[in-house]
Amino acid sequence: MITEKTNIEVIAFDADDTLWMNETIFSKAQGQYREMLQTYIEPEVLDQRFHETMIRNLQSFGYGIKNFTFSMIETAIELSYGKISGLEIQQIINLGREMLKHPVELINGVKETLHKLSKEFELMIITKGDLFDQEGKIARSGIAHYFPRVEILSEKNEMAYTNILKRYQITTEQFLMVGNSLKSDVIPVCKIGANALHIPFHITWAHEQVEEKEHQNLSYWKAKSIKEVPDLVKC
Amino acid sequence: MITEKTNIEVIAFDADDTLWMNETIFSKAQGQYREMLQTYIEPEVLDQRFHETMIRNLQSFGYGIKNFTFSMIETAIELSYGKISGLEIQQIINLGREMLKHPVELINGVKETLHKLSKEFELMIITKGDLFDQEGKIARSGIAHYFPRVEILSEKNEMAYTNILKRYQITTEQFLMVGNSLKSDVIPVCKIGANALHIPFHITWAHEQVEEKEHQNLSYWKAKSIKEVPDLVKC
Repeated sequence: MITEKTNIEVIAFDADDTLWMNETIFSKAQGQYREMLQTYIEPEVLDQRFHETMIRNLQSFGYGIKNFTFSMIETAIELSYGKISGLEIQQIINLGREMLKHPVELINGVKETLHKLSKEFELMIITKGDLFDQEGKIARSGIAHYFPRVEILSEKNEMAYTNILKRYQITTEQFLMVGNSLKSDVIPVCKIGANALHIPFHITWAHEQVEEKEHQNLSYWKAKSIKEVPDLVKC
Repeated sequence: MITEKTNIEVIAFDADDTLWMNETIFSKAQGQYREMLQTYIEPEVLDQRFHETMIRNLQSFGYGIKNFTFSMIETAIELSYGKISGLEIQQIINLGREMLKHPVELINGVKETLHKLSKEFELMIITKGDLFDQEGKIARSGIAHYFPRVEILSEKNEMAYTNILKRYQITTEQFLMVGNSLKSDVIPVCKIGANALHIPFHITWAHEQVEEKEHQNLSYWKAKSIKEVPDLVKC
């Protein structure tokens, strides 16, 4: 539990699945991909192999839609024994391109909450993933003006958070991180002694799931909706 | 010409083709791609169409190897009328993956120069491109310790430089940008009134080429090698 609520001065928000929908776009695309390949592969086999390919490819391509797209292509080639046609692969790339252009759908309550919080706190975005894609989403979101500071990272771990706090001369007591991922938004923030608030999204990407033992001894806030944030920080 | 040399306190370096080889990796990959597709397409037609696809795709995928790879795939599908096989497309993806893992080859003189400059100046990297790829190269370069500040941008324009100077409270007189691209490293820096040094690399990507009229009235330094920097800044 956070006790010294009044010390918080800076509230940082994760972006994907905290401020706007993201996993829903991936799920929808994966559904279309499954359908596209149903003549070649059983959906369950495809899902399993696709997931494995994507995790392996994080090392080469990093997080985001581009890795997702390369992994769709590679899995399709592998599971069709190379029989997949050039035109079908073009359809997969088009699927990736549509994902990148997808309109940014804010999560319910985001706009009002940011408006309220921005009067008393300094707000930041701290997100991970593809620089080009994340910048594009922030620009299209209609809420960029609430965030004078935006940090796009390749990985959100203890060192990354420590560096940000140091760079902006923010103490751990002054800092609150709000996000949907225990792994990226909550655990590393708690471990450096700062405040964290977990707001689960209805889907969590398998790669972001963590064992309960990794966070059972850590103290952090939980909320069902971003709308609860102003009350929690007494705003 | 820069006259008040003694005011410079911060020297920022571009990374690709300024600190380490980059265009050579792209050229080599493009050569292998040409060879791979020689049964389908004349090399000249391929080069031309590939270039067009890549420029168009900047909007969707941004700068870097991933855009290069998606563009190789799309051009191959288009010019083979969809006849290119899944296995050949897998080879193209492997080419992209090899590019991403390519060892970082420092340009001649970089290490000694940075060592010398780091004693009197604060050094930075300001580069554009894919966050994941650029971070990986900096980590593998063996020269990361010279750069306490690293900025990876999606675009290097006047606003981006203004924001960096503002964020770190650096005046335009204190700032020198060193890089191989007139378009990204020299022109926008001159336009905001800061100092720039152009060190051409032997290949310039067509997209980075600019008309002479865009820079003929601007004042900036030119050098043939990074080794000249200490003398230029009187170090």
